[in-house]
Amino acid sequence: MWCSTGTTSMLLLLPAALLIMDVIVVENIYLLVLVTLISVLQNAFFALKVEKECKFHDTNTPAFERVSCASRNCMDAYATFLAVMWCAGLCLSQAPAAFAGLIYLVVRHKYFVGYMGQSSQSTPGYLFGKRILCFLVLMCTVGIFNYVLVCCCGSNYKDYLETITKAASALLLIP
Amino acid sequence: MWCSTGTTSMLLLLPAALLIMDVIVVENIYLLVLVTLISVLQNAFFALKVEKECKFHDTNTPAFERVSCASRNCMDAYATFLAVMWCAGLCLSQAPAAFAGLIYLVVRHKYFVGYMGQSSQSTPGYLFGKRILCFLVLMCTVGIFNYVLVCCCGSNYKDYLETITKAASALLLIP
Amino acid sequence: MWCSTGTTSMLLLLPAALLIMDVIVVENIYLLVLVTLISVLQNAFFALKVEKECKFHDTNTPAFERVSCASRNCMDAYATFLAVMWCAGLCLSQAPAAFAGLIYLVVRHKYFVGYMGQSSQSTPGYLFGKRILCFLVLMCTVGIFNYVLVCCCGSNYKDYLETITKAASALLLIP
Repeated sequence: MWCSTGTTSMLLLLPAALLIMDVIVVENIYLLVLVTLISVLQNAFFALKVEKECKFHDTNTPAFERVSCASRNCMDAYATFLAVMWCAGLCLSQAPAAFAGLIYLVVRHKYFVGYMGQSSQSTPGYLFGKRILCFLVLMCTVGIFNYVLVCCCGSNYKDYLETITKAASALLLIP
Repeated sequence: MWCSTGTTSMLLLLPAALLIMDVIVVENIYLLVLVTLISVLQNAFFALKVEKECKFHDTNTPAFERVSCASRNCMDAYATFLAVMWCAGLCLSQAPAAFAGLIYLVVRHKYFVGYMGQSSQSTPGYLFGKRILCFLVLMCTVGIFNYVLVCCCGSNYKDYLETITKAASALLLIP
Repeated sequence: MWCSTGTTSMLLLLPAALLIMDVIVVENIYLLVLVTLISVLQNAFFALKVEKECKFHDTNTPAFERVSCASRNCMDAYATFLAVMWCAGLCLSQAPAAFAGLIYLVVRHKYFVGYMGQSSQSTPGYLFGKRILCFLVLMCTVGIFNYVLVCCCGSNYKDYLETITKAASALLLIP
């Protein structure tokens, strides 16, 4: 008797379950989507700078080479950044991952401006935001390790880990 | 009594629920996957063009520089495009997002061919498909805004928004 | 009566369902996340090589151009690789997709080392890992085709397809 009750209620509740699941999906990723959106707008800003330099000036000037190189270095690291931020957000907790992503975008903006503004030969190097990417990689590793623990030992430390991660993400603010 | 009924039926239905969820997951993304696949094939086409130019000709000819630059510009924007299309598809509705993605691929093909074919100095610029990317960014924003409304006011306008988005995506066909 | 029973038990089980769903989500992607993490570490290795060459040597030497070009070629293909691996993993089965991804990373490492080490003019070309990417694209196609079959005919061949894919992925080991 209970079996048919369960099945019928399950079938009747399927549309509701779908709606709930839809909201749950968005709930788990909306901060990540927000940071992704901001990063896309920043990419558009970089691209517009290159486009402007491309149109109004000669493409062989040092200014064009500088802005093109800065934009390309940022784009080279962009796919890596997105991948690691989304993995960290999905595996462990989205709030610290999105926060770290936001700081990364600030660092990237500083890098881009620093690259463009310099008149001397020295540039700020090829890499930037190393500390933030390390933090995100660490979050992924901890998330997967926790999943392995859940499977093997049946003990779920996700709540503790989320608290620790949230506290640790504040350390990224230290310059 | 009802509690145990619910729990038992839930546990008995878990495999079925897993199977249903699996189909639901694919249902929510299959159009996005399809467009991603087409974009990957297009990337392969671009890469083969570069490879061909690289092998059979000198790498210092203007033709090689042209095709290499066109391919690089397309690749620079590729991660951005993928991120924004998937976000729009997950947050709001996959059909308009996939449709916009498809039009973007057509625009990208035109851009690539236009870049390669020109013999004069002038190139089609650095950016392309701005209108489509704006549309996708707008879709993301609306999707997140709707989620905030669901959380705060409890009112879900997703059905209206999906209808409006579908109608609006047809406007992208206007050249 | 059963309806209220179902609803009440559903509401009471919602936190448990959320927890289960969370574990299910991680269960379906943890191998993909692992491969993504390894690829990120490899990207960091490539970037450090470029950074090192950039800092301690002149940026106009052939060595710098070689390592910069190798890194750029790898980065150009990176977004494509990630997209196709995740699509294959989500649409069909994550184990063969992650395995193919792992082999791709080995091939990429060989390509990078081969590009850097050569002193003659000839380079290993622009493309690499074509066979693996083809395999992943095929996996996506089969996964979507299976979903269409589920919708139209109601027959689910996923189990057979997963077994075949697992067997076929072993063929990638043949050099």
